[in-house]
Amino acid sequence: MPEPTSPPSSRAGVLELLRLFRDDVAAADQYGAICLDKARAVEPTLKAFEVLPIEVARKPGPLSGIPVAIKDIIATADMPTTNGSAIYKNHVPAADAWVVERLRNLGATIFGKTVSTEFAWRQPGPTVNPWNVAHTPGGSSSGSAAAVAAGIVPLALGSQTLGSVIRPAAFNGIVGLKPSFGAIPRTGVHPLSPSLDHVGLFARRVDDVALALSLLAGSSDSDRHGEPLPCFHVDIDHGVVPLQRPRLGVVRFEKWSQAEPEQRATFDASIQRLRDAGAVIEQTELSEFDRANWNAVNTILLSEAAVIYSDLVARYPDRTSDHLKRLVATGNALSAGDYLRAKALQERWREQLFAELPYDALVTLPAFGEAPRGLQSTGDAEYCAPWTFIGAPALTLPIAFGRNGLPLGLQIVAPYRNDHRLLCTAKWIETILAFDSGSPKIGAESHFRSD
Amino acid sequence: MPEPTSPPSSRAGVLELLRLFRDDVAAADQYGAICLDKARAVEPTLKAFEVLPIEVARKPGPLSGIPVAIKDIIATADMPTTNGSAIYKNHVPAADAWVVERLRNLGATIFGKTVSTEFAWRQPGPTVNPWNVAHTPGGSSSGSAAAVAAGIVPLALGSQTLGSVIRPAAFNGIVGLKPSFGAIPRTGVHPLSPSLDHVGLFARRVDDVALALSLLAGSSDSDRHGEPLPCFHVDIDHGVVPLQRPRLGVVRFEKWSQAEPEQRATFDASIQRLRDAGAVIEQTELSEFDRANWNAVNTILLSEAAVIYSDLVARYPDRTSDHLKRLVATGNALSAGDYLRAKALQERWREQLFAELPYDALVTLPAFGEAPRGLQSTGDAEYCAPWTFIGAPALTLPIAFGRNGLPLGLQIVAPYRNDHRLLCTAKWIETILAFDSGSPKIGAESHFRSD
Repeated sequence: MPEPTSPPSSRAGVLELLRLFRDDVAAADQYGAICLDKARAVEPTLKAFEVLPIEVARKPGPLSGIPVAIKDIIATADMPTTNGSAIYKNHVPAADAWVVERLRNLGATIFGKTVSTEFAWRQPGPTVNPWNVAHTPGGSSSGSAAAVAAGIVPLALGSQTLGSVIRPAAFNGIVGLKPSFGAIPRTGVHPLSPSLDHVGLFARRVDDVALALSLLAGSSDSDRHGEPLPCFHVDIDHGVVPLQRPRLGVVRFEKWSQAEPEQRATFDASIQRLRDAGAVIEQTELSEFDRANWNAVNTILLSEAAVIYSDLVARYPDRTSDHLKRLVATGNALSAGDYLRAKALQERWREQLFAELPYDALVTLPAFGEAPRGLQSTGDAEYCAPWTFIGAPALTLPIAFGRNGLPLGLQIVAPYRNDHRLLCTAKWIETILAFDSGSPKIGAESHFRSD
Repeated sequence: MPEPTSPPSSRAGVLELLRLFRDDVAAADQYGAICLDKARAVEPTLKAFEVLPIEVARKPGPLSGIPVAIKDIIATADMPTTNGSAIYKNHVPAADAWVVERLRNLGATIFGKTVSTEFAWRQPGPTVNPWNVAHTPGGSSSGSAAAVAAGIVPLALGSQTLGSVIRPAAFNGIVGLKPSFGAIPRTGVHPLSPSLDHVGLFARRVDDVALALSLLAGSSDSDRHGEPLPCFHVDIDHGVVPLQRPRLGVVRFEKWSQAEPEQRATFDASIQRLRDAGAVIEQTELSEFDRANWNAVNTILLSEAAVIYSDLVARYPDRTSDHLKRLVATGNALSAGDYLRAKALQERWREQLFAELPYDALVTLPAFGEAPRGLQSTGDAEYCAPWTFIGAPALTLPIAFGRNGLPLGLQIVAPYRNDHRLLCTAKWIETILAFDSGSPKIGAESHFRSD
């Protein structure tokens, strides 16, 4: 057996690692421990984890040797699951979440639990942005995004109810995927709003989230929201096939003027490069949808969350945040009619939005710009919520740095259940833009090769 | 071609007619006109129809020659569809409802539109009970039930949101079937409460509703509530196969003491006869379900109906009833939390109620007794609503007459999506009880053979 030549780069993606492990079993055996060393080195600053594993063992399967960090609202039977709440400080669930059990069956290593805002709502945890520790990593999947960006793990699970995957992925300069509503079952994932909650993925490459989704899509008896996704296969040697010269609709929305100048400029420059590379690009307004979706998505979220959290807030006033208390109070004031009208809009737009749009995907912003300074707010979801509302698959990938040296992203959205087309389009865009953010300095002190 | 011997009895069922038509084409050609004569003779008293056809033509298909009356909240492109409301007095829909189109494709004759209460809620139409014109026919499917009972048509469509099929069927001494939620698509059926609305069937025999359901079950793109029913076939020579010695759970509920003594006595006597014939019979309490379901089902109905009817009530105060106005006002006062908690109960009970019950079916009352005197109220839905709430298939069949000479029924309920088992159980019960109500006097003056 040959000696491993050098440890994998902390920027290596899942497919790259799987190819390496196929040829070099020793690297596969060592990689988990290397990730653990990296985590221990970075964690005092990054604070991305609620729980780290003591040791990591490798099991067989298509994801053998791949450490996956799990957002701490997703149940693990062998580790605490705090849901980001003091109430659940020492809570160990009786069973793994469906998606965790699936990951174990695929041979993946469950690599600890990552910081979530309180119940995936607004009260932030301690995690910092690895590109600048004075800035938020975004939320609610704060720790999962930061852990992937800092080079600790190549893959992490998050969840999105408004913008909790796409926004932290953009703020951390990585790839985030919120698949179609219902694509990954939510059994064992603590609910915030069952009509909106999605399980999502963080990684460093489009191919990596594509492979993960192809393996994690499914259906579960106790979470029958959404239909099972059409199957697709991702080859670890080639990844997904780029969709050449896609037809893209550019969506800026009325709030475009609120975005940071650098975000707008790099977005426009990226669109120009895609056009130059052969994409068919049109502007699309979606103004009626733009006006309707924000109120409706919030009405649904507040109504459903208030039912879930009313008792908890009443029972534990000292261990629930003002954010959560306001969520419950606002939700309790909504009428059944408010809720039903919002649900009717959700159904209507899910069916209609893409029906007459002649595009492979829409491209838009993932956020107003860089991660904001300070840890008190995790940022704004206005560019993410429309796609969560209608359950359309959305992906963000990094395209540049902003004026504070923090990453900026570009969001791609495809019709409901067209996740595979989204990934093929994103792969082409990733190839054309060919942006490499490198590694954040927070990882530089480790013994990893920094590249 | 032989001369037809005699016109079919006005008590003839669908299967009986289809067998007759197979052997005697002339009878098939004449039957529609005979039904029309009957309708014209009876209608001045019965008032079951909003619209009667001018003439009837026979088309080929498995239901060729069978006239089917359609509740007037179900859209027909060639006849007005009033929805029981003065607002829709001259409304002719642009397209047939899914179920009407299906009936036409099966060769059935769309035999006019039957009186519904206003939007299938409480404000009654003019229809009387054919067994005693001073009594209500029940509602909201008043005209469909009365038209079948009076011998005008052998089959009619209704709808049930609380008790609008089972109750009028029982009050009219006929068979009523409310299939599993979603079994017959509702596209083109005016909604009252989309979480509760069911399309249902009226006929004179269990086999007839079984055949109709086997042909009308389906799925439609625009009504995806509920899963398509498992297919079953009904042979017109033999009907469904009786389920011998079924295991039956007898459900009396706490409200049992409110039922009329004759209803209780004939129910108990029927249960004894079923036991004597070999049924395995147990009492079952369902007390937690009994306490929970009435509030929850009404919360869902009021919330959803208020959204549907708010604008209409505001716009047409002079053409909407006080019943409808109260419905909207009460529904508008409900909170999103009220609604969501009721929906969660619905989901929970739909999954749990039958999970641990070792029965082929439950047997219970369809109503508190005979159709009440007077036309102002269509009666009470308390024995019907529990099964509408959980979407379980329910059937009523006549078992006796009460002290006023009006029919009494027995209701049979099976687990969700076990419609075929319900029908096989009901066929056995129908065979054992062997009750024949004969024809109501309202039909006696016609030229039909009265038997």
